[in-house]
Amino acid sequence: MDNKKPLFVIKIGGNVIDNSENLHYFLKDFSTLPGDKILIHGGGKIATDLSHTMGIEPKMVDGRRITDIDTLRVVTMVYAGLINKNIVAQLQRYQCNAIGLTGADGNLIRATKRPVKDIDYGFVGDLSPSSVDRNKLDEILQTGVVPVFSAITHDGEGQLLNTNADTIASTLAIALSSLYQVSLVYCFEKKGVLLDVADDNSVLREISSSDFDRLKAENIIAGGMLPKLQNAFQAINSGVSEVYIGKSEELEMLGKEQFGTRLFA
Amino acid sequence: MDNKKPLFVIKIGGNVIDNSENLHYFLKDFSTLPGDKILIHGGGKIATDLSHTMGIEPKMVDGRRITDIDTLRVVTMVYAGLINKNIVAQLQRYQCNAIGLTGADGNLIRATKRPVKDIDYGFVGDLSPSSVDRNKLDEILQTGVVPVFSAITHDGEGQLLNTNADTIASTLAIALSSLYQVSLVYCFEKKGVLLDVADDNSVLREISSSDFDRLKAENIIAGGMLPKLQNAFQAINSGVSEVYIGKSEELEMLGKEQFGTRLFA
Repeated sequence: MDNKKPLFVIKIGGNVIDNSENLHYFLKDFSTLPGDKILIHGGGKIATDLSHTMGIEPKMVDGRRITDIDTLRVVTMVYAGLINKNIVAQLQRYQCNAIGLTGADGNLIRATKRPVKDIDYGFVGDLSPSSVDRNKLDEILQTGVVPVFSAITHDGEGQLLNTNADTIASTLAIALSSLYQVSLVYCFEKKGVLLDVADDNSVLREISSSDFDRLKAENIIAGGMLPKLQNAFQAINSGVSEVYIGKSEELEMLGKEQFGTRLFA
Repeated sequence: MDNKKPLFVIKIGGNVIDNSENLHYFLKDFSTLPGDKILIHGGGKIATDLSHTMGIEPKMVDGRRITDIDTLRVVTMVYAGLINKNIVAQLQRYQCNAIGLTGADGNLIRATKRPVKDIDYGFVGDLSPSSVDRNKLDEILQTGVVPVFSAITHDGEGQLLNTNADTIASTLAIALSSLYQVSLVYCFEKKGVLLDVADDNSVLREISSSDFDRLKAENIIAGGMLPKLQNAFQAINSGVSEVYIGKSEELEMLGKEQFGTRLFA
């Protein structure tokens, strides 16, 4: 049996952050999760809105958003400042001793600027298993605080980098799985992996790696769910004990009743 | 003799932050200070510039700036996001394992929203000696990281509050003086307390509480220096071992040669 302490690594998506009522509901439930936990949050539409206000045109190449230097300034302000610190203040209100972080803080997550191949994505960070300083993060967890990460990392040379929040969540979960029995939970606006995107009652309660391959081939799982599930399966195949994908408002059901979709290798 | 461990509590002013060359020079010197240290940074003009860009008019009452809800959003983005995380990333580059914080993080500094008397200052936080959780901050220091505070605190009820950085510095220094032998250092753009504001060579090497009263009465010390020195004398009268005020570019002289003005009770 596994004698490691349990740890929840929970990612909350941008759509939930845009809805302050849903966000507060989620944060209240998050604060009541027992034991050690880490929150990773996405960005939402506030950064896009602020860019518009500031007259910064979103730069897209082949439909992919580019993080130029102005966009990096905006996401650093919105993700690491506005959203992160408001989440922390709300969690404090619920007696959850949160501490808001980027990957630069404590040198906890060191990324590599994405190499330029066909597209120059700009100031975007890529992660590897060795990106996380698991011992320093463990030391911080052991002071009893709850780390809340925004999707900003750094390269160790003074450069901040915009980094995918789903990938940060799975990378943290994998890195800490040698020290903790990690449950990785992706919370978003849907009830889980749906067989019919239009029907919230078509939730798959379980999905295996081979199910995923089949549903992908049949085009039943597509779009934004693909990278999310790829991240999630990578975690389950790399030492993470449990992985779930489900609705932020149902987080309280985690560990009690059925929550979202559970992934299996 | 005092057997407590030494700790530097260093405040860097807004004018230095506006000059990226001076800021980098300062951060490099800060990173080489031996032992435990804490940095507190002010805001600079970036928040004012962003407010203008966003069409937010600065609200002034009797010449004092008011932090309304839009201004609070801006300073949270700029102080806790843009400036704080860029300082942290630069310090990481200099092998200084910084961690960027607000008072909400770890519930380290809990403020009270300033009561409305003649003027409603809006979302501004006032501090008291009991505002700081010295034990939690000590635990964090003992993990070997260097806290970098922006001038944002919270009320414990979910509300972030804009808070004077000089006051945060003296309040932290006083709170930690029961655990550490604290040197409090205010770094700004002048060489120290000047007898003639126009002459950078008129630095007072020492100033006592009675000198301060006399120079204040003679109107030789006036303007922004008054609250800064009041904060500083409060620290020296409340258990802080050493207090200095001096030029950010001369920080390397601290403890070696004469640095700025030293305060005495």
